[in-house]
Amino acid sequence: MLKDKNLILADSIRRLLRRGATKSLQKIIKKTHAADLSLVFKELSRVNRINFFQLMTDPEQKGNLFSELEEHIFLELIAQLDIDEIVTIFESMAADDVAELMGYLDETLSDAILEKMKNEDSIEVEHLMSYAEDTAGSIMVPDFIAIKENVGARDVIAALQNDYLDVEMPFYIYVVDEYGKLVGVCSLRQLVVVPPEKPLKEFMATDIVSVNTYTDREDVAELVARYDYLAIPVVDDDNRLVGIVTVDDVIDIISEEATVDILKMAGVGEDYVETQTVLRGTRIRLPWLFASFLGGIAAFFIIGGFHESLAKYTYLAAFIPVIMGMGGNIGTQSSTIVVRGIATGRINTRDIWSVVGKELSIGLILGLIYGLFIGIVAKLRFISEPFSLQLAFSVCLAVISSMSVAALVGSMVPMLFEKLNIDPAVATGPFVTTSMDIVSVYFYFMIATLLLGI
Amino acid sequence: MLKDKNLILADSIRRLLRRGATKSLQKIIKKTHAADLSLVFKELSRVNRINFFQLMTDPEQKGNLFSELEEHIFLELIAQLDIDEIVTIFESMAADDVAELMGYLDETLSDAILEKMKNEDSIEVEHLMSYAEDTAGSIMVPDFIAIKENVGARDVIAALQNDYLDVEMPFYIYVVDEYGKLVGVCSLRQLVVVPPEKPLKEFMATDIVSVNTYTDREDVAELVARYDYLAIPVVDDDNRLVGIVTVDDVIDIISEEATVDILKMAGVGEDYVETQTVLRGTRIRLPWLFASFLGGIAAFFIIGGFHESLAKYTYLAAFIPVIMGMGGNIGTQSSTIVVRGIATGRINTRDIWSVVGKELSIGLILGLIYGLFIGIVAKLRFISEPFSLQLAFSVCLAVISSMSVAALVGSMVPMLFEKLNIDPAVATGPFVTTSMDIVSVYFYFMIATLLLGI
Repeated sequence: MLKDKNLILADSIRRLLRRGATKSLQKIIKKTHAADLSLVFKELSRVNRINFFQLMTDPEQKGNLFSELEEHIFLELIAQLDIDEIVTIFESMAADDVAELMGYLDETLSDAILEKMKNEDSIEVEHLMSYAEDTAGSIMVPDFIAIKENVGARDVIAALQNDYLDVEMPFYIYVVDEYGKLVGVCSLRQLVVVPPEKPLKEFMATDIVSVNTYTDREDVAELVARYDYLAIPVVDDDNRLVGIVTVDDVIDIISEEATVDILKMAGVGEDYVETQTVLRGTRIRLPWLFASFLGGIAAFFIIGGFHESLAKYTYLAAFIPVIMGMGGNIGTQSSTIVVRGIATGRINTRDIWSVVGKELSIGLILGLIYGLFIGIVAKLRFISEPFSLQLAFSVCLAVISSMSVAALVGSMVPMLFEKLNIDPAVATGPFVTTSMDIVSVYFYFMIATLLLGI
Repeated sequence: MLKDKNLILADSIRRLLRRGATKSLQKIIKKTHAADLSLVFKELSRVNRINFFQLMTDPEQKGNLFSELEEHIFLELIAQLDIDEIVTIFESMAADDVAELMGYLDETLSDAILEKMKNEDSIEVEHLMSYAEDTAGSIMVPDFIAIKENVGARDVIAALQNDYLDVEMPFYIYVVDEYGKLVGVCSLRQLVVVPPEKPLKEFMATDIVSVNTYTDREDVAELVARYDYLAIPVVDDDNRLVGIVTVDDVIDIISEEATVDILKMAGVGEDYVETQTVLRGTRIRLPWLFASFLGGIAAFFIIGGFHESLAKYTYLAAFIPVIMGMGGNIGTQSSTIVVRGIATGRINTRDIWSVVGKELSIGLILGLIYGLFIGIVAKLRFISEPFSLQLAFSVCLAVISSMSVAALVGSMVPMLFEKLNIDPAVATGPFVTTSMDIVSVYFYFMIATLLLGI
């Protein structure tokens, strides 16, 4: 539904560009939200994009668009502008958005831009750029309301109507002491229900949750989500209020972090972006497949070691895929459940033994069920052969052991990684799959060799 | 960091419960946020949980706790209460939270509760319960500010200070006509900058984005996230304003939808919850492994068909794991990238050929690289055998075809599913993995049989 609207819009823009209908295009630009424009830009060809962009005149609207665009389209468009135009646009934007965009530009250009920007703006941007990536400091905005603790309710309301009209999200009034240290918070609602003379310090809430500039943005998002805040204050080491992180940024963080986790679990690497070139995509994905390559080679040598068994019973080979497949799939189930459980806080590493125990039990039960199925297939397929019962039994046991070990490894590895402060998502995917392949194949041939008496 | 705080709290509560230190426990209850209490409850044993809960006296606080708890803990605690206590608690809660909790109770109990609740409260709850799950109607709250279009700015401010003091999130003033139809919206900020006599209809924004009661909650979340709204109005078929969905609920939706997608992709089923019993977990996961079972059996018969090749060259079997593994892993990469790309709107199904073409190219390049590696291993391992070159070449070609077909299938299947309105996440995982296993094995033996001239 949402997408269709923008696809239709992109179609009309294409048509209007072909006809050179500048007036209509400018009307569209004027009435379309920057978030929608950014999606339309993605649909247009490079040439159309640049032509359409050149019809935009309002620097503020260009700024809004820039803060919504994907990196490569932003870089394409900014290449069309001279430095003075860029500076005008950036000066109209929120400092946190400018700081983010600056990160995409090469240093010569970003330095030149900072040089030319109004002093106050460039100081703000440079300040934000100085915080490490993915910290509260790098995503906070300086756009908050801070009022001294001895100001009365009526004066606070007056200040809101006069001094803070340009604050975008005036939900919380932060209360600071004479040194700018955060001491409390009060809501708009409270202001109107207390006597007008009452100073903030007498009715503010003092059990305020704040984060530090270097708090990881994931922790910031977790706090905001847990307590249903609209914004959370960011303080420096001296507890001085230096910014806020707002809920709209938290939404983006939560969605991005989920994507990063998904990509890591699939063994793609967190930096993978769909719009990359073939070569860049190849380079990022190459090393992630290396674990699986090594595991496959290990399995090759293991099977080679059972050369004689295979020579006698060539049919043993035919069960390799189903045994590997069942182990691999249940391992993925277990590790995914645990990794996501850790990420959403539903699983705690303190409960490692109960979680792993449960996964092991499930693996054992499912192994019994599918082992029986596959054993029956083996028995029926070779019903006239003298070795059919031993073969069926070997295959069944191999499936049981492969599936229960997979569930065990799949759940235990992410728990251990989390305890060791290694990101469970990044290590789980390739690690679990690969080790399971090796273990499954080894168990299978060991069991078969023993039972078939080769 | 966040978790540790609650673990320490759970420890003290355990200690205090042992000592029977009721006073201290009640102090803790009083000063702890419901979101934190819900995490603490998860850490406690069943008995401690119930004892601790019985120390809570304030119905409103119990209500806040209920709205944060996991289903099974909520059911455990509610079993301790008689129906009048439940009614008192529910009456203190927001209608949308009560409607959600009602869904967990059996019908006899929920009917009895509705019967006993104050009329206005029960009507609201029943109304919300009547909307289909996962729609805007089922998650909206009736807690909004709606003012007629001809009211002047000053009177609006007065109304906010008098009639709407209990509205939890007073960010947007929705403007309705005489029939209650939504005609505009205005922000708190606008109210204070216009002349006090000016009626709403003269300065409200009219390009208002709203959703219908039956809009899917994922679409609601997408709109709120895209436009950075704090709430979005929900209207009925006659465009009458009936509720709002607030940003804090949107955060939960985004996180839940990501979890659902991750679980579907891992072939666990969207309803999987970590806290389920072993038997229930087994039952949910069993059918998801069936695809992989069928695929394994198919691969078994395919390999069985190449019985003679295997009898002659038993070493062919040793390469099955590496060929299946490489195909399976790149297939997972491709399908994950596409599924997540579709979910986040970065990939559009209109671009199916460019996306699939890119994945195919990457699969081909990576296949060439790893095919060469594995071919070299094969050549070196069997260097003294007369067939070593043909074997190496077969293995190399098998890896190339397996990896490129996997990238092709892995990217095309979710695109096609999305086009056919089948959830790409749910079908991708088991479907892609299983079909890749079969294709890889078949290609490998075909190529080997041809090249080795068996």
